Amino acid sequence: MNRPLIVQKFGGTSVGSVERIQEVARRVARCSRDSRLIVVVSAMSGETDRLLKLARALSAEPVARESDVVVASGEQVTAALLAIALHACDIPAQSFLGHQIRIRTDSAHSRARIRAIDSERLFAALDAGRVVVVAGFQGVDEHESITTLGRGGSDTTAVALAAATNADACEIYTDVDGVYTTDPRIVPHAHKLERISYDEMLELSSLGAKVLQIRSVEFAKRYGVRVHVRSSFNHDPGTWVVPEESKMEDVTVAGVAFDRDQAKITLTAVPDRPGLAAKIFSPIAAQGIVVDMIIQNAGADGRTDMTFTVPRLETENALRIVRDVAREIGAGEARSEGEITKVSVVGLGMRSHAGVAAQIFETLAREGINIEMISTSEIKVSVVIDAKYTELAVRVLHDTFLGEGKEAH
Amino acid sequence: MNRPLIVQKFGGTSVGSVERIQEVARRVARCSRDSRLIVVVSAMSGETDRLLKLARALSAEPVARESDVVVASGEQVTAALLAIALHACDIPAQSFLGHQIRIRTDSAHSRARIRAIDSERLFAALDAGRVVVVAGFQGVDEHESITTLGRGGSDTTAVALAAATNADACEIYTDVDGVYTTDPRIVPHAHKLERISYDEMLELSSLGAKVLQIRSVEFAKRYGVRVHVRSSFNHDPGTWVVPEESKMEDVTVAGVAFDRDQAKITLTAVPDRPGLAAKIFSPIAAQGIVVDMIIQNAGADGRTDMTFTVPRLETENALRIVRDVAREIGAGEARSEGEITKVSVVGLGMRSHAGVAAQIFETLAREGINIEMISTSEIKVSVVIDAKYTELAVRVLHDTFLGEGKEAH
Repeated sequence: MNRPLIVQKFGGTSVGSVERIQEVARRVARCSRDSRLIVVVSAMSGETDRLLKLARALSAEPVARESDVVVASGEQVTAALLAIALHACDIPAQSFLGHQIRIRTDSAHSRARIRAIDSERLFAALDAGRVVVVAGFQGVDEHESITTLGRGGSDTTAVALAAATNADACEIYTDVDGVYTTDPRIVPHAHKLERISYDEMLELSSLGAKVLQIRSVEFAKRYGVRVHVRSSFNHDPGTWVVPEESKMEDVTVAGVAFDRDQAKITLTAVPDRPGLAAKIFSPIAAQGIVVDMIIQNAGADGRTDMTFTVPRLETENALRIVRDVAREIGAGEARSEGEITKVSVVGLGMRSHAGVAAQIFETLAREGINIEMISTSEIKVSVVIDAKYTELAVRVLHDTFLGEGKEAH
Repeated sequence: MNRPLIVQKFGGTSVGSVERIQEVARRVARCSRDSRLIVVVSAMSGETDRLLKLARALSAEPVARESDVVVASGEQVTAALLAIALHACDIPAQSFLGHQIRIRTDSAHSRARIRAIDSERLFAALDAGRVVVVAGFQGVDEHESITTLGRGGSDTTAVALAAATNADACEIYTDVDGVYTTDPRIVPHAHKLERISYDEMLELSSLGAKVLQIRSVEFAKRYGVRVHVRSSFNHDPGTWVVPEESKMEDVTVAGVAFDRDQAKITLTAVPDRPGLAAKIFSPIAAQGIVVDMIIQNAGADGRTDMTFTVPRLETENALRIVRDVAREIGAGEARSEGEITKVSVVGLGMRSHAGVAAQIFETLAREGINIEMISTSEIKVSVVIDAKYTELAVRVLHDTFLGEGKEAH
């Protein structure tokens, strides 16, 4: 029983048809010669949307507990189908649903968080020589109700299982072959990163490099799970997401990310009194709208303009709230402005390399790109620019920090 | 809490689309004013077949434990969708899967039998004023694996829940509006029975009146559950399946059933020695083939012909077995013969009315219909005839026992 224990996760595209499930079964069968395996699967691609559509045809806002029961069936079917396909390859396999291995979550239906996993049944099945197939995305709360973890939740299931079983690695199979220095559709010579730290991955994935669900990266970081993001369409190594290593700081920048799904709102002529920022942002937060960047321009007359970004889909909601507040506090008008993009440069090396921000400003200025907002953290600099310059900005920043001759991790 | 407790079951056609589910929700909402309700649902029509097809695309014989996980998802989805539709009608409702209310079964996957139900969670939800929606057809075994009860199993779920909760009635909603004295497509003036005893229903349903799954009737009989079979397409009363009442015997015959799905096999020149019948029928039973009727014609030379019926789909299997045995015991040839139909006349009243069998023989003789085999029980006479006379035989027997002026239950 000293063979390594590997958790593998296959997303919806990887199990999107009978043929794809058979391919996954063959890959798993091959790996099972050398390793003990826990395989986590998503619903077949399109299935979650089909199920949600049924629920929404019955109610504009389907009651969350029941909606979770409906959509959790998608992963249930795939898990059992993969077990069937493995048996057809003469590999003993057994499927498990969230409640069967006690993936305990809170009761926040459709976005539940995992609290604990009972690994006893998993190890019993592994010790019996079986491949364990787990329905991703789902758990069970203290009332024995089915819960789901939200979109991309199967990644979290996989990482949580790897943590609970102290697995040697967690392989996330997807339709891209790793994490790139930026989107290769914009910068053709973007290259695949061999390894990246959790913190860099968090900054990149929250900014639009949608390879790995952000919560699963937080989980991996907390429990030190080594994650290998790779393609289910070939056998090439992908990108390892791992604990920070000192040599990672030798490289200044890991990647350039961008996010087109933000909108900018400006509230003018805000009286310059203490506590007014709270008056503006508390009701927005109360609606569950995430405000990302905030800047304040002091005006001449004791009034300031307040500018901030929200997810584009929440623009109208946020405007309605801000206009109510504006009337209450005697501020000017609230408006959303133009199409913007947030571009971010991320890298552990920034800590030790001064002047990255300055290099960014220079690079953009050279192209005549105006920076509308700036925010910085220890390992990231983000700027908001006019959306029409997105590709140009990403390209020149990638050239500056990651172009030919520059070394990535 | 003194409102009556009713279990209602809706089959696949009744919940076959979003619109049909909404209709069921409206019906349930109306009933919930006067009664506490437990509603059992099947998978949307076609869904179980779709899921089985996926499983069979991966394996000619999908491993039974996993196949059950796949198909059980069908009822899971419908149960939650109905709960969502009820919420949309402002009716508080909660779905439960087999494992959530501990519908304990044995481990005979795809044809499991219910052993026990824990009614505690059901009553907790009912006491909280909720409509309880239960996924039919499924349970959980001692290993916490999902099991299914076989085709029509949702009827059994409903009756078992009615027994476990001591419900006042179990309403089975289907696409026919009750149990008829015979198939109205053959006898247009066949009429709906107001009530029928369990034993009559068992004889009728096992003979092809496919209204109610036979195991559910056995269950209802054992626990004295009053079952109301009715249409989900209108509000007319249907047929009550109830404990035997003395006045039921006033009516000689409840119905005329027929079964075209049998085949007749004859084995000639069987040596007339003790124990040979067992040699023939034991290996057939061992293959799970149900032999219905058996007759033996003593020949002149110390040998007999043995004739028996098996389900038509098993004809080839049974012939193969019988030919092996024939070689072994030195019998003659085995052959299946022509197209046959079994016609049965069923009624509690036969017990007290002599001469029913004679009346059947006379009626058929008058039409020149030859009787190939006969079997009788206390409340049933069955005859095997040439299939081409099916409609004629059913019509004349119905006229004799249930025609104009005759009283049904």
